Amino acid sequence: MPRTLSSEVAEHIGEPVTVKGWLHNVRSLGGVVFALVRDRTGLMQAVTEDAADADLLRGLGSESVVSISGRVAQEPRAPGGVEVRIERIEVIACVEKALPLQINKALISAGLETQLNHRAVSLRSPRARAIFRVQHEVTLSFSEFLAGQGFTCIHTPKLVSAAAEGGADVFEVDYFGRPVYLAQSPQLYKQMLVGVYERVFEIAPAYRAEKHDTARHTNEFTSLDLELGFIESHEDVMEVENAWLCYLATRLRERCEEEFEVLGARIPEVPERIPRARLSEVQAAIGRCGGEPDLDPEGERLASAWAHDRFGCEWLFVTHYGVEKRPFYTMPDPEAPHLTRSFDLLFRGWETTTGGQRLHRIEDYRAKLRAIGSDSESYDFYLAAFEYGLPPHGGLGAGLERLTARLLDLRNVREANLFARDRTRVSP
Amino acid sequence: MPRTLSSEVAEHIGEPVTVKGWLHNVRSLGGVVFALVRDRTGLMQAVTEDAADADLLRGLGSESVVSISGRVAQEPRAPGGVEVRIERIEVIACVEKALPLQINKALISAGLETQLNHRAVSLRSPRARAIFRVQHEVTLSFSEFLAGQGFTCIHTPKLVSAAAEGGADVFEVDYFGRPVYLAQSPQLYKQMLVGVYERVFEIAPAYRAEKHDTARHTNEFTSLDLELGFIESHEDVMEVENAWLCYLATRLRERCEEEFEVLGARIPEVPERIPRARLSEVQAAIGRCGGEPDLDPEGERLASAWAHDRFGCEWLFVTHYGVEKRPFYTMPDPEAPHLTRSFDLLFRGWETTTGGQRLHRIEDYRAKLRAIGSDSESYDFYLAAFEYGLPPHGGLGAGLERLTARLLDLRNVREANLFARDRTRVSP
Repeated sequence: MPRTLSSEVAEHIGEPVTVKGWLHNVRSLGGVVFALVRDRTGLMQAVTEDAADADLLRGLGSESVVSISGRVAQEPRAPGGVEVRIERIEVIACVEKALPLQINKALISAGLETQLNHRAVSLRSPRARAIFRVQHEVTLSFSEFLAGQGFTCIHTPKLVSAAAEGGADVFEVDYFGRPVYLAQSPQLYKQMLVGVYERVFEIAPAYRAEKHDTARHTNEFTSLDLELGFIESHEDVMEVENAWLCYLATRLRERCEEEFEVLGARIPEVPERIPRARLSEVQAAIGRCGGEPDLDPEGERLASAWAHDRFGCEWLFVTHYGVEKRPFYTMPDPEAPHLTRSFDLLFRGWETTTGGQRLHRIEDYRAKLRAIGSDSESYDFYLAAFEYGLPPHGGLGAGLERLTARLLDLRNVREANLFARDRTRVSP
Repeated sequence: MPRTLSSEVAEHIGEPVTVKGWLHNVRSLGGVVFALVRDRTGLMQAVTEDAADADLLRGLGSESVVSISGRVAQEPRAPGGVEVRIERIEVIACVEKALPLQINKALISAGLETQLNHRAVSLRSPRARAIFRVQHEVTLSFSEFLAGQGFTCIHTPKLVSAAAEGGADVFEVDYFGRPVYLAQSPQLYKQMLVGVYERVFEIAPAYRAEKHDTARHTNEFTSLDLELGFIESHEDVMEVENAWLCYLATRLRERCEEEFEVLGARIPEVPERIPRARLSEVQAAIGRCGGEPDLDPEGERLASAWAHDRFGCEWLFVTHYGVEKRPFYTMPDPEAPHLTRSFDLLFRGWETTTGGQRLHRIEDYRAKLRAIGSDSESYDFYLAAFEYGLPPHGGLGAGLERLTARLLDLRNVREANLFARDRTRVSP
C-alpha cells in the first residue's frame, strides 16, 4: 500500500493506510498503547489494544523507524484530530540505546552544548526541525525573489588568493603546497560580475578566522549576498532588501505559522519602508559618543530598542558609518567624506546585514589601495573589472543563521546552524 | 527619466527613452555612428548623425558605460527591430585601455587560458553570459523542483574532521592551529539529516585535492546534492533525478532558447524514463572487459554513444558498479554482493551524477568500517544517526559545472566555472 504522510491522514477517515516514520513517543494507558509517529510532515497518533502489538511498541526504543498499517478514525485528542487504529507493525530500524537527550517534549531540557554534541539526535526535536524549516523558507525566498527581479545566481570560489574584507582573519588552506585562503565573502567576485549581469546573488558559505566566542558569531556561516549596478546610492540597495523582507514575511505567514508557534516566536511585521537613521543620530538618541565610527553589540541592542519606541518597528537601517570602519571598496559620502554610503540592518537587537554603495572608478580604487598601503598587485584580477567599465553599484551580505536566529528569538546563533563551527567545535 | 532595458525598448516606438549599459561595439558608416549597447537583458542599437556625439562614441573605448537618451524608431536591421536615435549621451565610466581579448564577435578567438586569465572581461562576452544564465536556471530549477517535492534545503559544513569519500584527496585547512579538511561532499551530513527531514538537498561547493589535469575536473566544484528516505532501492533516487531533468528541460525550452542559440547547442530531450543498463551489460555492448568495476572516460563516451544508438537517448543510467569502486556507505546488491545498488548518469559522453542506495543499519556500518580498516571513532558523530534509527535511503551528487558543460556542448568544464580552480589556477 502506498505510504500516507501524517499531514494526509485526516483525508482518509475510515480507510486503511500505511504510515511510516520515527517512534517519537510511546505511552501506555492500561492495556492501550498510544504511539506518536513522526514523519517529515509532522506527528500522528497510532493506537493499539492488541497485546502483542502493545508489547512490541513498549519494547521499541525511541526513534525506532516503523511502518504501521491500520484504519483511520476520528480522535479529537490526537494531533490533526485523527488516529490510526493499528493492524500491523513492521519495524524498519530498531533502536536499542537510550537517546542521549530527550527530544519528545515541548521544551528541551538539555543545554546547548549537549544539543550540539548530539546533533544527529537533537536536530530531530520538533523545535530544531521548526528552526531549519524556517531557514529553508528564508533561503528559497531569497533566491526566488531576486531571480524575479532580474538577478542571476552565481557560484564564486571559496579558495582565494586575496582577502576581500582586509585583516588577518582568514583561514589558510594548503593548496598543493602553496597557501590560499578561505573566502571571507564573495565581495570581489560579485562586484566583478556586476560587469557581466548587473544584478547577481549568491548563497554560499563564508569564513572568518576570528577568535570570538559570542552568541552571535561562528567561524563558518552562510552568507546571503547580492550586488546590483546602475544605482544612485546605498538607498537603492536598502530598497531591494526591504522588498525581499516584505516578500519573506508574507511567505512565512503563509507557510510557517506552525513552526513559529512551536518556537513561541512571532513573525515580524515588515513595513514597506523600514525606518532609516544615520549612525550619528542613533548615537545621540541612545546616549553614545557621536565620534565613534561604529556601534558595539550593546549599542545595536539599544538602537533597536530606540527604533521600536521611536518608529514602532523591529527593523532599523543605520546608515553613514565612519570610513575607517568600512572596507576599502566602500563609497565615501560625497557630502561628508569621513562617512560612507553604507548601512547595517538591525533586527531585534542584532546586526543581520551589512551593505552599501561601492567605489566604481578605477582611479578611486588605486588611490584607496595606495592610501591603506595595500599591495594592489594581488587585486589586479579584481581591478580589471573597474578598468574595463563598471557602473555605480552596491550590495549587501546578510548572515542566514543570524537572520534565522532573530526571526525565531533564539539566543545563540549556533541554534540556527545545522552543524556549527566555532573556535572549539569542528564536529559533528 | 527611468531607465528602459534593452528587452523593453521595442515597446516604446516613437517615445523618448533612456537606456544604460556597456558599449559593446561601435561602427561608423560615413557620418553615421552605430553603437551596440549591452545591458543585463541583451543588446540594443543606438544611432547618431550628430558630429559631436559621433566623435564622442568613436573616442570611447569598448566596455565604457554609458547612459543614452533618445527616441525609439523601428529599424529592421537592428537587434529587436528597433534602435534609439540618440539625443544625449552621458558617459558613466570611460574605458581607456584596449580590451585584453575581443568579446564582441560571435566567436571568441582567444584561447581558453586567455579567457580564464581575463575573466572580468571574457565573462562579458555573449557566449559566456549565455553559459551562466543557463547555469542559473539549472540551479534554480533544482531547488524549486525539490522544494516542491517536500525536500528541505540544507547548509552543511565545509570544514570537516573526517573525509566523506575516503582517500587522501582532501585539502587541509589550518583551523586555529589544528588540521581540518575541506569537505569532498556533504555525504555524511545529508544522510544524518534524512533522520530529521527525510528529504534534503544542498547546493554548495565541494573540494577534491586530486592532481588531475583533464577537461572534466576542477578542484572546487558546485555539488547539487539530494538524499531521501523510505526508498525501496536506488531506482527511487533515479526517478527523482529523472523527474527533475524533465522539469529542467521544459524550463530551458521556456526561458533559454536564445542562450542555446548563442552557443549553437541543443536543449536535450529528456524521456519520462531515462534508459537504465547494468554496468556489465554496458561493458559487453562496448566491448570492454566485464570484470572491471567501473568505466573509464573513454568507456563513458562509448557507453553514451551506445545508448544513443540503442535507445535513441542522450541520457543513460548505468547501474550496479563494483563494490570496490564505491564508497563505504554504498548498499551492496543483495542478489550479487560484489555489486552495488549504485548508478552513474551519463549524458553526452560524460558522467554527470553519481548516486545510489546507502547502508542504513548501524551494524552494517560497523562491519564495513572494520572491513576496510577505518578508524570508526572519527565517524562516531555520523554513526549516531544510524544508531538512533534511519530508514532505507539513498541520494545523489551532480556536478553543476559538468552538467552545464554537457548541456551546452562545452569541451572543457572550466568554461562552465565562473572562476575555475585547478592545480595551477587560484586566480582570478
